[in-house]
Amino acid sequence: MEKIVKQTLLYDFYGELLTIRQRQVYESVVLEDCSLSEVAEELSISRQGVHDMIRRCNQALEDYEQKLHLVERFVELRGKVKKISVLADEAGIPEITAICSEVLEEL
Amino acid sequence: MEKIVKQTLLYDFYGELLTIRQRQVYESVVLEDCSLSEVAEELSISRQGVHDMIRRCNQALEDYEQKLHLVERFVELRGKVKKISVLADEAGIPEITAICSEVLEEL
Repeated sequence: MEKIVKQTLLYDFYGELLTIRQRQVYESVVLEDCSLSEVAEELSISRQGVHDMIRRCNQALEDYEQKLHLVERFVELRGKVKKISVLADEAGIPEITAICSEVLEEL
Repeated sequence: MEKIVKQTLLYDFYGELLTIRQRQVYESVVLEDCSLSEVAEELSISRQGVHDMIRRCNQALEDYEQKLHLVERFVELRGKVKKISVLADEAGIPEITAICSEVLEEL
């Protein structure tokens, strides 16, 4: 999986377990692609400080994944629901296709 | 949802985030239905100590759920996959039924 996709998924699942400040920094740098210097200036901390926070966030998110495996389970599950959706399309059962779409939107 | 079912689901999802000692106590008292006194004696702590640990575990598990909503999402998802399975059965598409069974086993 591409690194940014993985990071986004990890953040989707476990981001709420980070502190508000960690979330701010993570969202700015990793998800919105702001530069370390920009974020450092905004929060009045050093560039190295921002860098360290991102490293610690990534570590925390990876630790949660290692314990709960939600991203792994999610990717697998998504694949299976997509398979069902294709089969339902082929067989022409729109009720199943509709439920699959609902599930995929929520996942 | 019945309290014990809820507690079991919460523990299934977030148990790994508790400490080893918390897990021991939680499994003995809540999942295996041992008495507080039994567990207290086994771990050489007071009955009240066991009681407090369970209370703190329940609080921690509830806090994780409030942040991540995994149990809620899981119950909803399970319901939808079961619906797909019934529809696939009715329409006679064993490939879909098989994938549903796989998903339900993993969920």
